[in-house]
Amino acid sequence: MLTLDLVLPNSRYPIHIGRGLLDQVDLLLPHFSVRQAAIVTNDVVAPLYLESLSSQLRAQGIEVIQIVLPDGESNKNWTTINLIFDALLSHHCERNTMLIALGGGVIGDMTGFAAACYQRGAPFIQIPTTLLAQVDSSVGGKTAINHPQGKNMIGAFYQPQAVVADMALLDTLPERELCAGLAEVIKYGLLGDIDFFCWLEQNMALLRARDADALQYAVQRCCEMKAALVGEDEKEHGVRALLNLGHTFGHAIEAGLGFGVWLHGEAIGAGMVLAAAASEALGWISTNDLHRVRTLVGQAGLPVQAPDLGLNNWLSLMSHDKKVSQGKIRFVLLQQIGQAVIENNLPAEILQQVLTGRDILV
Amino acid sequence: MLTLDLVLPNSRYPIHIGRGLLDQVDLLLPHFSVRQAAIVTNDVVAPLYLESLSSQLRAQGIEVIQIVLPDGESNKNWTTINLIFDALLSHHCERNTMLIALGGGVIGDMTGFAAACYQRGAPFIQIPTTLLAQVDSSVGGKTAINHPQGKNMIGAFYQPQAVVADMALLDTLPERELCAGLAEVIKYGLLGDIDFFCWLEQNMALLRARDADALQYAVQRCCEMKAALVGEDEKEHGVRALLNLGHTFGHAIEAGLGFGVWLHGEAIGAGMVLAAAASEALGWISTNDLHRVRTLVGQAGLPVQAPDLGLNNWLSLMSHDKKVSQGKIRFVLLQQIGQAVIENNLPAEILQQVLTGRDILV
Repeated sequence: MLTLDLVLPNSRYPIHIGRGLLDQVDLLLPHFSVRQAAIVTNDVVAPLYLESLSSQLRAQGIEVIQIVLPDGESNKNWTTINLIFDALLSHHCERNTMLIALGGGVIGDMTGFAAACYQRGAPFIQIPTTLLAQVDSSVGGKTAINHPQGKNMIGAFYQPQAVVADMALLDTLPERELCAGLAEVIKYGLLGDIDFFCWLEQNMALLRARDADALQYAVQRCCEMKAALVGEDEKEHGVRALLNLGHTFGHAIEAGLGFGVWLHGEAIGAGMVLAAAASEALGWISTNDLHRVRTLVGQAGLPVQAPDLGLNNWLSLMSHDKKVSQGKIRFVLLQQIGQAVIENNLPAEILQQVLTGRDILV
Repeated sequence: MLTLDLVLPNSRYPIHIGRGLLDQVDLLLPHFSVRQAAIVTNDVVAPLYLESLSSQLRAQGIEVIQIVLPDGESNKNWTTINLIFDALLSHHCERNTMLIALGGGVIGDMTGFAAACYQRGAPFIQIPTTLLAQVDSSVGGKTAINHPQGKNMIGAFYQPQAVVADMALLDTLPERELCAGLAEVIKYGLLGDIDFFCWLEQNMALLRARDADALQYAVQRCCEMKAALVGEDEKEHGVRALLNLGHTFGHAIEAGLGFGVWLHGEAIGAGMVLAAAASEALGWISTNDLHRVRTLVGQAGLPVQAPDLGLNNWLSLMSHDKKVSQGKIRFVLLQQIGQAVIENNLPAEILQQVLTGRDILV
C-alpha cells in the first residue's frame, strides 16, 4: 500500500492506494469520533461490496446505516441527495456520524455534499469504486449535485477525512466505466506531465487489460498531481483550474445530451480533443500533437468526436458553466502536450471553427 | 454609524450599525468583484425596500436581479431555496455575483446557504430587516434550511462579506416581529452579561416603544457579544454553543407545532423560561431569578409558557436536534443570570419535571 498526503492550509488527509484495502477497516477507524457510520452507495455497487464493508465495521462495534441510491449521473440531484438526509435523520445520526461514500464519482460527489450540509458539516470518507473516482473525483473536496440548467452548479468545497482507493474494486468495473476513467488519466498527462503522457501512449493496452501494476501506477501518478494542485489552490482561484481541461466542452456535452447519456469521462474524452483542436487552431500545438491526443483518446475506448449540439446550443450551454468569469467563457488549452494554460479570450472564430469542425460528429 | 469587526482565523468582516444605512450604498460597493447583484427578499419586505436598494445599485452601474420569495419559516426549505438557484442560473449569474439578503432570519439563512452552495460558493451581504436578524442571525455565518424532521438540519457555516444593520428598517417591523427579536436580545443578557440583563429590565418599555437610542444600544451590545463568541469559535466546537440558550426547547416547539406557527423568537422566549426552570430545579439559580427571567420574557411580549407537546413528543423532537452528542441531548442552562453553561447530563427526572411543570401550557 502507498499513502499520499494531501496537505491544505488548515488540514491534511491521507490517500491510501493499494489492493485489498476494503478489507483493511483499520484504515477507517482512526477517523471516527462516534461509533456510527452511514454508508452511501448505489444499487450497482451495493450487491458487490456493501455487506462486506458493513460487517467489518459492525464487528468493530460500529452501528452501520446503509443508504442505497439509484445509480447514474441522472440521479445526481436534490431528490436523490434528500434520500441521504431522510435516512440520516430517521436514524438520529449526529453531526459527528461518519458518512462513507462507497461508489463512483456520482456517489462521492453527492455523499460529500450531503456531509458538507448535514447539520452544517459531518465528516466523510471516500472509498472510490471506479477508476474515474480513484484518479480524480474522490480527491480534492469538490462536491456537488447537478441543476437542470448546469452540472455541479450546487455544491461545496468540503474535504474528506481520508480517501481509500482499493485497486481490487476495479476488477468488477464495467469496460465502459474503465474507459471513462482513462479520460481523466489522460487529462493529467496532457495538462502537466509529458512523460506520463508518453507512458500512457506506450501502456494504454495494458491499462485496458487491467494490468494491476499499470493501473496502480496510473492512479498514483494522477493522485500525486491532483494532491499537488489542490494543496496549492484548494478553492480554484488559480492553478487548480487546469484540472478543468476538456471540461468546458465536456460539461456542455453532458448537459446538452441530458445527464447520464454520455458518461462524464466520455464527454471529457471528446472535450479534450476539442480543447486540443482549439490549441492547434491557435497555432499553439502542432497538427501532429493534435493527432496524438485524438489517437490516445481513441485507444482509451473513448469517443474522439463530440455530438453535434448545434453552434448556438453549444455556446448557450457553455455560458452556463461555472467556468464563466465576467461574461467570458474560460477554457483550458494546451501550450504543448504536458503544459496546459487557462485562456479567457479564445477568439469567437476559432471557437466556431472547432465546434463545427472534424472533431464534431455531423 | 458604528462599525464592529468580526475577526475570524482566515477572514474578517464589518458589521455596520446605524440609522439610514440602506441609503448608503457605498457601504456595499467595496465588496463587489463583478458588477452584478442578486437581491433576495420576501413578498413582505419587497414592497417596502426592494426598489430603493435596486435603483441605488443600478445607478452605480450594477445589474440587479430581484428574487422575491414567499415569507415565513414554513418556506425555509429546498423548494423555496431552489427558486434562488433557478433565478441565478436563468440570469447567467457567475460565482462572483454578489447575493444580498434583504430580510429577516429566514431570508438571511436561505440566501446565505444559497450563496454557500451556488457554484460552490458566491459572496453575499446581509441586510437584516428584523430585530431578530440584526441582533443574532445575520452575524456569524450560520446558514441553513429546515428539513421536515428538524430545524436548520441542512446548511453550512458560511460568512457574509458584510452585515449592514439599518435601524430605520425597524420602523416598519410588525409588533409581533419586534417582540420575537427581543427574545434573542434577552438571551445575550442571560448567557453572558448580567449588567445588560439589568439594563433590559429597566429599558424594556423603551425598546417596546422603539426608542431609537435604546434599540441601537441593544443591537450593538448583542452584536459585540456575538462577534466575540463567533470569533473565538466559528464552527461551534465550544463557547459558541452558549448562543443556543433556549434553543433546544425552542426548536422542538417550532418543529412540534409546525414551522411558522410560533415565530422563532416566540419559541426561544418560552424555551429560555424552560432552561431557567431546569436551572432552578437543579438548584443553580434561585426561584427569584427564575421569576426575573419569566417576567422579562413576558414584558417583551413573548409567551412564557411553552405549548404542551406531550412528554414523549418533546423528547423525540429534542433528540433530532443538532445539539445531540453521543446520544445525549445538550442543553444550555444558567449557573446564574449572566452566566450560561453547557450541560450534557441533565437528569431525566429534572427534564420531565420541567416539561410537565408550570412553564408548560396545559
